[in-house]
Amino acid sequence: MTTPPGLPDPLRPVPPPDDPARAARVQLRLDGKTKPLGALGRVEGLAVQLATALRSDAPRLQGPQLVVFAADHGLARHGVSAYPAEVTPQMVRNMLAGGAAVSVLARLHGLALTVVDCGVAADFEPAPGLHVAKVCRGSADCTVEPALGPGRCAQALAHGAALVARLPGNALLLGEMGIANTSAAALLMTRCTGLPLAQCVGRGTGLDDAGLARKTAVLQRALERHAQAATPLEWLAAFGGAEIATMTGAVLEAARRHRVVVVDGFITTAAVAVAAALQPAVLQACVWSHASAESGHARWLEQLGAQPLLDLGLRLGEGSGAALAWPLLRAAEALLAEMASFDSAGVSRRSD
Amino acid sequence: MTTPPGLPDPLRPVPPPDDPARAARVQLRLDGKTKPLGALGRVEGLAVQLATALRSDAPRLQGPQLVVFAADHGLARHGVSAYPAEVTPQMVRNMLAGGAAVSVLARLHGLALTVVDCGVAADFEPAPGLHVAKVCRGSADCTVEPALGPGRCAQALAHGAALVARLPGNALLLGEMGIANTSAAALLMTRCTGLPLAQCVGRGTGLDDAGLARKTAVLQRALERHAQAATPLEWLAAFGGAEIATMTGAVLEAARRHRVVVVDGFITTAAVAVAAALQPAVLQACVWSHASAESGHARWLEQLGAQPLLDLGLRLGEGSGAALAWPLLRAAEALLAEMASFDSAGVSRRSD
Repeated sequence: MTTPPGLPDPLRPVPPPDDPARAARVQLRLDGKTKPLGALGRVEGLAVQLATALRSDAPRLQGPQLVVFAADHGLARHGVSAYPAEVTPQMVRNMLAGGAAVSVLARLHGLALTVVDCGVAADFEPAPGLHVAKVCRGSADCTVEPALGPGRCAQALAHGAALVARLPGNALLLGEMGIANTSAAALLMTRCTGLPLAQCVGRGTGLDDAGLARKTAVLQRALERHAQAATPLEWLAAFGGAEIATMTGAVLEAARRHRVVVVDGFITTAAVAVAAALQPAVLQACVWSHASAESGHARWLEQLGAQPLLDLGLRLGEGSGAALAWPLLRAAEALLAEMASFDSAGVSRRSD
Repeated sequence: MTTPPGLPDPLRPVPPPDDPARAARVQLRLDGKTKPLGALGRVEGLAVQLATALRSDAPRLQGPQLVVFAADHGLARHGVSAYPAEVTPQMVRNMLAGGAAVSVLARLHGLALTVVDCGVAADFEPAPGLHVAKVCRGSADCTVEPALGPGRCAQALAHGAALVARLPGNALLLGEMGIANTSAAALLMTRCTGLPLAQCVGRGTGLDDAGLARKTAVLQRALERHAQAATPLEWLAAFGGAEIATMTGAVLEAARRHRVVVVDGFITTAAVAVAAALQPAVLQACVWSHASAESGHARWLEQLGAQPLLDLGLRLGEGSGAALAWPLLRAAEALLAEMASFDSAGVSRRSD
C-alpha cells in the first residue's frame, strides 16, 4: 500500500508513550489539592491522562475540533440498516445547516465542527464546515468485492492524516455518519478482536430481530468473501468504509502530534482499534467518551482496556457522545490548573 | 414544630406532579427529531424531565444557583471523620476564595455560587457569595442530646426556604460542606430507608477499617439515644445537621416554585430524602447527578427510584458532582430546543 504523491505518510511511527514520571508528578499535585485523596474519582485519572497525552505538566486544551467523517457503504443495498442510504447526504446537509444533534452540541460547547465527505454517494455544494476528501462515491459491496481496495484505503488514510495536520488545536473529537457503517465496524471488530461475528453485530439505528438476522447473514458472506485478508490494513481495505479509513489516518496523525483524541461510539472505536492494531501507542491519546447501547461496544472497550466516561444509553453516533463528554475534559483541566492546595489555602490535612 | 415569625412556612404543600400529557408531547417532539428513535438515550429522558419539572414544553434553564450548605457537627468530636472539624470553616473560606473544586467548576460552567453558613462553629467576615443563616455554632453531639432540637430544626428549614425564595433562576444545584456530615446522613438514611445501619455507613473522606468500625459504633449509640424519634422531622431534629435541615427547606421551596433541583452525593441525598418523606412530589424536581463512591449511596438512590447521570467514583461532596453533570442538563435543553425534525430538515425516515 503506497501513499499518493503529495500526501504525508499516514503510517509514520507514533512516538512511544510519555515518561511515566509525568503522570506521577501530576498525581502528586492532585493529591496536594484541597480534597480527600482520590475524591474526584475518575476525573483525577482524566487530568493525569490529559497531561500525558498533551505531554505537559500543565495541560491546556485548545481549539477543540469535532470532525464528522461521512461516507456511504455498498453493504447498504442489502438492507442492513433501518434507514435508506439517502439519509447519509441528507444528514451531512443537516449537520452543516446546524440542525443535527452534533451541530447543537458543538455550538453549545464551543467545538469547531467539520464534516468530511470521505466517500458519500452524492455531491455537495461548497459550504462552511464542509471538507471534501472523497475516495469514492460510496464503497463497493464487500460481499462481492473489496469495499475500498488497497489504493483507496491508502488514499483515505493519507487524507485523514493531512486533514489533522491542517487543523488547529490540540484536541480531536471523532464523529461519523454513514448508513450501514455499524456493519463495516462489526466486520472490523470480529477481525480485530477475534470474537465471533454474533458478538460484534448489533441493531445499529434500530433493526428488529429479522433485520438483525439479515444483517448477520450478509456480514457472514462478507467475511467469507475476504477470508484471505489477514492484517489490519487488509481488513480496512476489504470492509471499509471510507470514513473509517480516513478516521484511522486522522487518529494516527493526532497521536503523532500529541493531541487528545476523544472517541465516540462503535464506529469511531473501529477506527481507533485499527489504528491501535497498527501502532499501539495511539491508545495513550484516547479518551473514551461513552459506552454505546450498540451491542458489542462494551465488549470491544473492555478488550481495548478502555473505560468510558459516560454510560447514558446513547446510540446516535455523529460524535454526539464525544461532545457530551467534552465538559468533563474541560473540568479535569480546570481542576488541575485552578484548585488550591492544602498549603496555599491553609486547610488542615487528615488527622491520622 | 413552628416556624419562626417573619419566615415562610417551609412545609407548605408542594404542588402535585405535572400533567403527564406534557411528558408525552415532549417525547413525541423528540421522536420527530433527526435521529433514530431513542438514540439519545438518557439525555432524552432528561429533556422530558426538564419540561416536567419546569412546567414548560419549551424548558429553558436560567440563572443556575449552586448553593453549598455548610455546618459543623457535634459528632465530629468522636473521630468519625478522617479530617479535623477545623476543616469546615477553612473549606468555606477556600470556596469563597475560589480555590475549592466547587469554586473551579462553578466558574467553568457559569453557575452562581453561594456558600451558606447554616451552623459552622466559626464566624466569617462578610464576603461576596457568603450567606449567613446560622442556627447554631455546630450542632450538638447527638449521642447525648438532639443535634438540633425542634426549634433550630424549624428555623433551619425556614432559612432554606427563605433563601430559595430570594434566589433568581430556575435551577438549584445542591452542595454541602461539614466535617462529619456523612455520619448525620447515614443516621438519616437508616431511619428513612429502614436499612440496617451497617448498610448506610461508609468511609466518608477516607476512614480506614478501624475508623469505620469506630464511626459505626458511635452512630449506633446515637440511634439508641433517639430511639423515640419516629418522623422525618424528628429524625432531622435528632441527628441534624444544620446544613441538611437548611437544604431540606431549600429543596421543598425549590419544588414548590417549579425549579429543577440537581442533587449531588450522599449528604444532599439525605436532604432530598427527608424532603421527599415529607412531600413525595419533590422527587419530580430532582435530577440525580451522580452515584457517589460513598458506600450506601447507590443503595439509597435505588430505593428512591433515582437513576444517576454520572458514575465517576466521586466522593468529594461540595456540589462537585452536581456541577460536573450540569452540562448534560444544558445539552438536553439545547437538543430539545434546537435539533431539526425529519420534516424541517428533509431527512428520510426509516425504511420499514
